[in-house]
Amino acid sequence: MKILIIGGVAGGATAAARLRRLSEENEIIIFEKGEQVSFANCGLPYHIGGVIEERSKLLLHTPTSLKTRFNLDVRVFNEVLKINKEAKTVEVSNLITKETYTESYDKLLLSPGAEPFRPNIPGINSNKIMTLRNVADMDRIIAKTKDLKNIAVVGGGFIGLEVAENLVEKGLNVTVIELGNQVMAPVDYEFAKMVQHHAAAKNLNILVNTGVEAFEEKGNEIELKLNNGTTILADAVVFAIGVKPENALAKSAGLDLGVTGGITVDDFMQTSDSNIYAVGDAVEVSHYINQAKVLIPLAWPANRQGRIVADNITRGNKISYKGTLGTSIIKFFDLTVAATGLNEKLLKRYNIPYRTVTVTRGNHASYYPGATNIVLKMNFGEDGTIYGAQALGQEGVDKRIDVIATAIKGNLTIYDLQEIEIAYAPPYNSAKDPVNILGYVAENMLNDDVRFINYDQLDDYLLNENAVLIDVRSKTEFENGAIPNAINMDVDTLRDNLDFFDKNKKYVIYCQIGLRGYLAQRILRNHNIYSVNLNGGYGLWKPLNS
Amino acid sequence: MKILIIGGVAGGATAAARLRRLSEENEIIIFEKGEQVSFANCGLPYHIGGVIEERSKLLLHTPTSLKTRFNLDVRVFNEVLKINKEAKTVEVSNLITKETYTESYDKLLLSPGAEPFRPNIPGINSNKIMTLRNVADMDRIIAKTKDLKNIAVVGGGFIGLEVAENLVEKGLNVTVIELGNQVMAPVDYEFAKMVQHHAAAKNLNILVNTGVEAFEEKGNEIELKLNNGTTILADAVVFAIGVKPENALAKSAGLDLGVTGGITVDDFMQTSDSNIYAVGDAVEVSHYINQAKVLIPLAWPANRQGRIVADNITRGNKISYKGTLGTSIIKFFDLTVAATGLNEKLLKRYNIPYRTVTVTRGNHASYYPGATNIVLKMNFGEDGTIYGAQALGQEGVDKRIDVIATAIKGNLTIYDLQEIEIAYAPPYNSAKDPVNILGYVAENMLNDDVRFINYDQLDDYLLNENAVLIDVRSKTEFENGAIPNAINMDVDTLRDNLDFFDKNKKYVIYCQIGLRGYLAQRILRNHNIYSVNLNGGYGLWKPLNS
Repeated sequence: MKILIIGGVAGGATAAARLRRLSEENEIIIFEKGEQVSFANCGLPYHIGGVIEERSKLLLHTPTSLKTRFNLDVRVFNEVLKINKEAKTVEVSNLITKETYTESYDKLLLSPGAEPFRPNIPGINSNKIMTLRNVADMDRIIAKTKDLKNIAVVGGGFIGLEVAENLVEKGLNVTVIELGNQVMAPVDYEFAKMVQHHAAAKNLNILVNTGVEAFEEKGNEIELKLNNGTTILADAVVFAIGVKPENALAKSAGLDLGVTGGITVDDFMQTSDSNIYAVGDAVEVSHYINQAKVLIPLAWPANRQGRIVADNITRGNKISYKGTLGTSIIKFFDLTVAATGLNEKLLKRYNIPYRTVTVTRGNHASYYPGATNIVLKMNFGEDGTIYGAQALGQEGVDKRIDVIATAIKGNLTIYDLQEIEIAYAPPYNSAKDPVNILGYVAENMLNDDVRFINYDQLDDYLLNENAVLIDVRSKTEFENGAIPNAINMDVDTLRDNLDFFDKNKKYVIYCQIGLRGYLAQRILRNHNIYSVNLNGGYGLWKPLNS
Repeated sequence: MKILIIGGVAGGATAAARLRRLSEENEIIIFEKGEQVSFANCGLPYHIGGVIEERSKLLLHTPTSLKTRFNLDVRVFNEVLKINKEAKTVEVSNLITKETYTESYDKLLLSPGAEPFRPNIPGINSNKIMTLRNVADMDRIIAKTKDLKNIAVVGGGFIGLEVAENLVEKGLNVTVIELGNQVMAPVDYEFAKMVQHHAAAKNLNILVNTGVEAFEEKGNEIELKLNNGTTILADAVVFAIGVKPENALAKSAGLDLGVTGGITVDDFMQTSDSNIYAVGDAVEVSHYINQAKVLIPLAWPANRQGRIVADNITRGNKISYKGTLGTSIIKFFDLTVAATGLNEKLLKRYNIPYRTVTVTRGNHASYYPGATNIVLKMNFGEDGTIYGAQALGQEGVDKRIDVIATAIKGNLTIYDLQEIEIAYAPPYNSAKDPVNILGYVAENMLNDDVRFINYDQLDDYLLNENAVLIDVRSKTEFENGAIPNAINMDVDTLRDNLDFFDKNKKYVIYCQIGLRGYLAQRILRNHNIYSVNLNGGYGLWKPLNS
């Protein structure tokens, strides 16, 4: 069998290696229009910052090593111009010799990836504006920013923020400009706010709700005209507002495209032509939670799909791809931020009713040195279905999100989260994991054992319900900063002060993270006093209001 | 309702707090024969070593703080001597005043824990021999080892090793004496071997297959007569060969005990008397995997059970305990070692047929600085059922074991492991998690795409099958150390040397961790040459043979 693969990174490279392991006989040719195959694209920002010191470490394989080890025919600087699906051939241009030639195939795999989105803004073609997709782009950013001082990064997504962090670590002045009302789309607003506070502490300037209307070169600098009427000057711009699937080849070949513009594939990753498969950032996938058609350009799905396609090509369509959960993670200075499944923004967009719970707990036993807090949020349904989770902290964030992603794949509910028997010793955890706690609190909510309001409901609730705000932390904590108009009553004194409370009034309780607030609410509740607890406590409210 | 709780640590303390949150009205009395309630027992070894500097950090609550916050009546130094289940009373001795009194109950919770096992060895009662169960024991060990030099730790379980590590870190000479053929029972032999090698590198002396037949004080020292005819001298001994459930009170009250000696409880944690519940190290539980009756004295189950009992007492028996998986973890110098479910030893004991797979992978992307290897083993059934897993490494071990423990709770199979969509960015993982890889390799095994033999089958296989051993690593790696009688043939040269292979012979292939070995086997297989792959590669074979 003769198998052609278009695109030699992530999904394409994975498929090729697996295809070879499954058969020594197939002829496998990889066409890559760039210089490199099988490079570590997720590592690019870290070489810009010097964290990954050696550029060569990013080049996981070369055409020669792929030939030697896997007997693959890898053709870099070879761009496929056209697919003739009836004839089962492709037309290829050798970008070095400028020659064009035809290759036939039995099976064709499209793994073209996605390209940085560059809208038609005046001045966008300035060579002071760079994007980051491959090793050549990375080299260009390193070379161009070498002796510069002020860099503007347009786009506050993962790539924008990773590049920004790395440039700051190199000592540059960086401003991130984000059109939306928050950075880091996979997490909800309050998490993005915490990220933005952390950025400020690291001297990274982030402007949200800010768009670029035009670029204009001014001598050695470039001016960004912003949609708020102001301008900023930079020495160079990294443009990273997102990516769009490379669908041109598929489209011109007459393959079906989805509503998102991604290449349409079935469960076996087969396109509308049965001899052509497609994987990675270029395909439209079903979201694992609700089967919505989405583009989720991440490395894990690309690799998984590549493996599946290799099996399906070699052994017939037997393995199906079950959809993408969108688990993602970013290191951002001292923080780790991660998410899986559907966030509140998406749940609202899809009209899925949900509840949300936020807990703050140590990454490990508080009495063991070095404990730091994780803020962990989960969105779930009335029936206990887990829709998604988000986490932020310094250590142990990845573990909790991976556990929840696993729980979702196991169809575990919020009740089951309580029963996840984690590995506990003081350096690693507490005897109740934050994930267990999420399950407990979520059940308390569904049982109406605890009532929450979210940070964005607080002001309206206080006004509309004429409610009284009670801070149940210690006097010292209260005096160090509290929500305006709160009355301080330490949870430990509550039982002695029940006379204070009016059974005809409503109370909003908060503490630092929600734990003492929960106990306070239980005490009041057991005395028939109505209260609601502020989700996430003062710890979450503070960054949202400063 | 009046609720009495015997034992104020872990399960008992958790139950008490939850009982109060569920109702302000119940009278709750905790009897604790020791000085402290709600102390951090898993933290004790770390204060011995000075890692946890402040002793006060281990005291999570005092009777006073429990009174203030939860309105609990906590009676330390109060030992319950007898339960009269017909009269629903307990007889209590105040160990300070020596007075005895009676308390009645509506519901009684037994959370007495487990006590260090001290077999009847001559000399065992020397006051140079100490055990570690509570804060007083810890204080004694710290005081007694203060100016000493040579300590013997009898027992190579988690407590013995944690104490040994901490004493070594303080600069003492420590010898661990273990009767079995390995330390750390939750993991299998090859993992224990790696642990023992690490101990040696840290100047901790471990003797396995070694029992103590007698202790004898010799001046300021104590002599241990070993079962191999030799003796060793130490300044003090920490005795930690295991624990046994505190069942005396339950037994004398006529409550049913299980085959293991643990208190019998039903799914609702109710003993044979419907007014008496029991939790924690004192109860016999069902193993989550095969429902075998077992004692698994760990903190997570105790806390989970405590929570369940509080709900069941307050709201009627509604929540069932689903059994214990036995997920456990230990920090041991630079290593983390963790396990969940059934290991090979237990699978053999229970006559459960199983397969086993071991993979070695980086904790995160190899090109990102600081990557270290994790050795990850999984035992599974022919139908893909996951029975258990073990992991060892420096970073990220806890994450993988927690993910697998979650997968087990979700009834995920080895096929599903492939689909766990983990959070990937270079500082946290590779685009294929080691857990994904476990699933892939296990499927390859079940599909007969790869054939393994284990380290303990190698010698027999080579002999009985007259097989040829091939090292497919590079020449340099081979020359730096290889398995005796192996022939070196770099995987990358295999396709050029197919003539070397005899289709009537069998070959054993190995590389460093199994990855190149797998590819080599696939190449040979696709050319009709029979080979098996050495599970875990040279990396696993080496510590087992040195």
